[in-house]
Amino acid sequence: MLHTHAFMAAHTPVAVLGASGFAGAELVRLLLGHPTLEPSFLGARGDAGMMVGEVFPHLGPIASQRFELVDALDASSVAAAFVALPAGESATVVPGLVEAGARVVDLGADFRLPADAYPGWYGFEHGAPEWLGKAVYGLTERAREAVAGAAIVANPGCYPTPVGLGLAPLFETGLLDAGTTVVVDGKSGISGAGKAPTASSHFAALDGSVRAYKVGRHQHTPEMELAIRSAGASPAVTFIPHLVPTVRGVVTTCYARLAEGATEAALRDVLCDVYDGEPFVRVLPEGATPDPKRLTGSNGCELSAHVDEHAGTAIVIGAVDNLGKGAAGQAIQNLNLMLGLPETAGLTSVGVYP
Amino acid sequence: MLHTHAFMAAHTPVAVLGASGFAGAELVRLLLGHPTLEPSFLGARGDAGMMVGEVFPHLGPIASQRFELVDALDASSVAAAFVALPAGESATVVPGLVEAGARVVDLGADFRLPADAYPGWYGFEHGAPEWLGKAVYGLTERAREAVAGAAIVANPGCYPTPVGLGLAPLFETGLLDAGTTVVVDGKSGISGAGKAPTASSHFAALDGSVRAYKVGRHQHTPEMELAIRSAGASPAVTFIPHLVPTVRGVVTTCYARLAEGATEAALRDVLCDVYDGEPFVRVLPEGATPDPKRLTGSNGCELSAHVDEHAGTAIVIGAVDNLGKGAAGQAIQNLNLMLGLPETAGLTSVGVYP
Amino acid sequence: MLHTHAFMAAHTPVAVLGASGFAGAELVRLLLGHPTLEPSFLGARGDAGMMVGEVFPHLGPIASQRFELVDALDASSVAAAFVALPAGESATVVPGLVEAGARVVDLGADFRLPADAYPGWYGFEHGAPEWLGKAVYGLTERAREAVAGAAIVANPGCYPTPVGLGLAPLFETGLLDAGTTVVVDGKSGISGAGKAPTASSHFAALDGSVRAYKVGRHQHTPEMELAIRSAGASPAVTFIPHLVPTVRGVVTTCYARLAEGATEAALRDVLCDVYDGEPFVRVLPEGATPDPKRLTGSNGCELSAHVDEHAGTAIVIGAVDNLGKGAAGQAIQNLNLMLGLPETAGLTSVGVYP
Amino acid sequence: MLHTHAFMAAHTPVAVLGASGFAGAELVRLLLGHPTLEPSFLGARGDAGMMVGEVFPHLGPIASQRFELVDALDASSVAAAFVALPAGESATVVPGLVEAGARVVDLGADFRLPADAYPGWYGFEHGAPEWLGKAVYGLTERAREAVAGAAIVANPGCYPTPVGLGLAPLFETGLLDAGTTVVVDGKSGISGAGKAPTASSHFAALDGSVRAYKVGRHQHTPEMELAIRSAGASPAVTFIPHLVPTVRGVVTTCYARLAEGATEAALRDVLCDVYDGEPFVRVLPEGATPDPKRLTGSNGCELSAHVDEHAGTAIVIGAVDNLGKGAAGQAIQNLNLMLGLPETAGLTSVGVYP
Repeated sequence: MLHTHAFMAAHTPVAVLGASGFAGAELVRLLLGHPTLEPSFLGARGDAGMMVGEVFPHLGPIASQRFELVDALDASSVAAAFVALPAGESATVVPGLVEAGARVVDLGADFRLPADAYPGWYGFEHGAPEWLGKAVYGLTERAREAVAGAAIVANPGCYPTPVGLGLAPLFETGLLDAGTTVVVDGKSGISGAGKAPTASSHFAALDGSVRAYKVGRHQHTPEMELAIRSAGASPAVTFIPHLVPTVRGVVTTCYARLAEGATEAALRDVLCDVYDGEPFVRVLPEGATPDPKRLTGSNGCELSAHVDEHAGTAIVIGAVDNLGKGAAGQAIQNLNLMLGLPETAGLTSVGVYP
Repeated sequence: MLHTHAFMAAHTPVAVLGASGFAGAELVRLLLGHPTLEPSFLGARGDAGMMVGEVFPHLGPIASQRFELVDALDASSVAAAFVALPAGESATVVPGLVEAGARVVDLGADFRLPADAYPGWYGFEHGAPEWLGKAVYGLTERAREAVAGAAIVANPGCYPTPVGLGLAPLFETGLLDAGTTVVVDGKSGISGAGKAPTASSHFAALDGSVRAYKVGRHQHTPEMELAIRSAGASPAVTFIPHLVPTVRGVVTTCYARLAEGATEAALRDVLCDVYDGEPFVRVLPEGATPDPKRLTGSNGCELSAHVDEHAGTAIVIGAVDNLGKGAAGQAIQNLNLMLGLPETAGLTSVGVYP
Repeated sequence: MLHTHAFMAAHTPVAVLGASGFAGAELVRLLLGHPTLEPSFLGARGDAGMMVGEVFPHLGPIASQRFELVDALDASSVAAAFVALPAGESATVVPGLVEAGARVVDLGADFRLPADAYPGWYGFEHGAPEWLGKAVYGLTERAREAVAGAAIVANPGCYPTPVGLGLAPLFETGLLDAGTTVVVDGKSGISGAGKAPTASSHFAALDGSVRAYKVGRHQHTPEMELAIRSAGASPAVTFIPHLVPTVRGVVTTCYARLAEGATEAALRDVLCDVYDGEPFVRVLPEGATPDPKRLTGSNGCELSAHVDEHAGTAIVIGAVDNLGKGAAGQAIQNLNLMLGLPETAGLTSVGVYP
Repeated sequence: MLHTHAFMAAHTPVAVLGASGFAGAELVRLLLGHPTLEPSFLGARGDAGMMVGEVFPHLGPIASQRFELVDALDASSVAAAFVALPAGESATVVPGLVEAGARVVDLGADFRLPADAYPGWYGFEHGAPEWLGKAVYGLTERAREAVAGAAIVANPGCYPTPVGLGLAPLFETGLLDAGTTVVVDGKSGISGAGKAPTASSHFAALDGSVRAYKVGRHQHTPEMELAIRSAGASPAVTFIPHLVPTVRGVVTTCYARLAEGATEAALRDVLCDVYDGEPFVRVLPEGATPDPKRLTGSNGCELSAHVDEHAGTAIVIGAVDNLGKGAAGQAIQNLNLMLGLPETAGLTSVGVYP
């Protein structure tokens, strides 16, 4: 039986598996301010046994709590689990959690794609393909009902989140040419690459640098194509991400051929209509462009639509905090729905700025 | 009669005067998440008439609200007012607010010093010296009772906050030599200099730069001396602030002659004892040093104490978010006390990190 | 008669008009290390009369020299002039310089486009359309001979430089589909926006920010189209620049439809062939992507070519220091050619790194 | 017999040992632009066998050259060697180089201090104490003659360079109280910590951070004391370095008790006199403060002197590029002297700015 709000105690215990990574730490930070959910188990692998304060001194209130081994979780002791493990590991952990009755939000990639996509894009065979059918792709604003009832929510990747929210309604309404190729030029801060120190995450390498990476082979490409396919279109997506010298935030600049007769005003109107009243999605007025800086620490997403008339190109720009709406924030938004809690519980749309 | 919590409606209206500056925006951001207080009046001068979203797009939920002229406030309509106006302007505004029954937290400098300090350090004669006696210097952890009962709280400056919290207990316990000169070397992000674009706030000038400013004449110097004097000592303070390429955060590295026989452990023990149980002050363990990055958006303060035995020097380091515990956060902490609300209402000690 | 090297004294005097801006300062910095050219006249408008050291303290060796009024230049006293004035101003100044016998490299936009392009893209009528025919578009590697003999060289814009160097050879060899639209997604540091402090150049606004600007209407668009047209193709270009938190450097990520049968190896081979032996253009090996950080302070340009086979998209990425090869460096490279000096005199391809 | 200029070929071969670190790369960059010296041997340990371009893509002109094993150097094939190896390793390498006739500039710490200082400050016993007497401490402006004739020059550390240049003349002239303690508060970019990726060099950790490190136990402390002792005074130095989010540049803010009757003007006059005509040391005018940003990539040093009269404190601030005058630049300046070349050959005092 699924846990829902009627059964929630004031302090509903949830597990965070992969709590010692950046997404995990953001989940914990948000949960410390959540009115209902309580991070009762912090699972890790390499950092198991360490105190939280040694790894993340900003989490002062639980500095002396320890990370436990992921596998030490008694799944029946929690209402739900956030899984933020490296690609390929979720598939080995999630089935057991679900069988023990826990609702699962998986922040990894293991439940986002069909099984045959994993060898090519991720380099491994999926470990539990029979479970893929139980997962719902949790781009919340486009999948509320399905999320609410799901056993497993596949939390979207950071880049696909603004791409899906921005493009899907425009394909659905026929404002973008069905035969277009979609170009997505992404820019991301370093936190998306994780906490492990590497040559490219060194401050001396990244400060002052702007550099494309994984050109033509970033694993978020098929996820974007699926998100657009949910809108009834099937363009190929060329996605080139760039690393820029920021910590948080992604911007996706999408280019597509405008449908005959469509206008910038029509694009903007559709987005405004679709997201009217949404607590976390803000469609910007004419002339304005999204900036993830304004969303730091929040679950907000900014979108804008533009037309380059002289070339017939539609441009749709989106921004999120990759650790917020692009990861931990959307995960909590999804779990709120799954547990029958207010969708906005523990979340804000207002970033820390400047 | 002073407003206190018994009389507070669920949504207690408060004014923010100077809401279109950085400290003002942070007050508004925090108030939007406060369970009781509500920013009902956003006063500005130059930006009056503009929509909030035009000036601060991150404040999405009130984007279409407008800044009003400071002088248009009907003080009887609010329980309290935060005043974040340029130096010299508070003194002309605060008396009227108090007379109309509003509790006031002044984030400016006008009520922090004796009247005779203003010409030398601030370059103007104080405009309402007879009101200085009604103000309490609101370094919260050292003045809780007085703050709770005050009509006017002079909210401390960003630099003096960690200096006062770190040094005062050590002078009080005699661990620092009474005859010492205190050297305070400060480092601050640019938000402390305000929102107005200038040659030195230009990204191209500040990125990659570290530079001392206002050498020997920063106006926070006498405030630090007063904060230390509250501990019964009267050293002269030499304070040199430096601008570093960050947005938020100040670090103060204080140097003083160690008292005969004092040890690093003794210094740390005193600070641990004094701040044991404090929700917002964290004394770091041996070997660790404060970092304002961990406090971004929070009301936290980190402190550490060290001894350089070979030179007989005590080093006390502190860090705050200059817009948090160094301005808006501490201001809300103080107003919470003044209104009988839980001291931590609307505040967190956990910064947005990384 | 045109000045050439045979007539050059060891110290050949040149003027820099607009010397108090960022491009002007970089010209001066490079000229101070140039073996032949000597900055004998530093012209400015608003800063005229100020000492160089007041505006640019890094130019220590000439700190006490003063900026003079642009109009005070006696053109016959210099062999050549660099003109780095705001758009629209060059057209009023350059003709007189040429008539007085000075060779001119114009770093502004006034001599880059046909006259009818200015009202739409720049918002003004060209002031000296009859002089446009005397100017050569100075994308050096593609116009050496014409540059050498020109009276006026229109120095390319920062963004069009890597776009033209990267795309033109690929259109010329038919590897890109002639019917494609070209998408150029640009990323630039703040120095490209000039020295004047503004809301968007404030460190507190830019740090942590990534934001598209001038969407669909950036004035470098027609210049890119012309640069590609020189290769015999006439695609429409959609160009969206983004401001990222760096000081120097631009990256241009260009997307075009691959011609039938073309391959990534073929693209790279063409670029390697074309730029083999070039001192300032480096074509990167497979898998590598350009990074302007490596070019800081240099006249280098990095290029890479890629193919996304699943979408049939060619991706050509370029990077320059916008003040180097994107402005002052290329200007000196061009003047070297014009004066018969070694093309590399006073220039380096090695950036200051890290 | 010592090599001097009379014997120098146009291209004098020199070795760089430790060429794959940041200081080594800066040596190579500067040598590529040096009129006489040529980096003929690039020695490394872990990176031996790699191509230069794989490790440092900015060094394009020698991208396909390979790092060789340090121990493979035939010392008789070079006129001189720069040694930039980890602490403790120089002592094992330098004697052999000298015996083979090479002049040596050691950028490490092994020849800066008396033997008995190493166990306490560096944690190891010195490996060749009998060679310490052959080394000259190469703070160039204070040791020109000795440097010129030395077999081994111990190149000063980055922090001690501006401290020694700033304080020594003021102690020598009696303007600072002989009984003072000297407080040195240092700020440094991350390049000083080397190329190896670590938790604290991660961009996500350092961006937005300001943090003291090695409090009271930084190994540059005794070097500062020695540099001051050369001026006839023997104060204890308390030195606290801070890591700030920049790549290059150190600032040292020194505090000392002013001698009776001394004035700010007197301090500045002494520094101006001492460094009048120096190509690389600039004493700033009243009110200005040093900024390493202006020195990026250069061999310059900026100094300023101030007095806080109300506390009787003298403040002497210095800035260098830690890889320039703080390492590679000064090393080349020293070798120029040793080989009888012009002292400024291959060096500039003008940084890349902004």
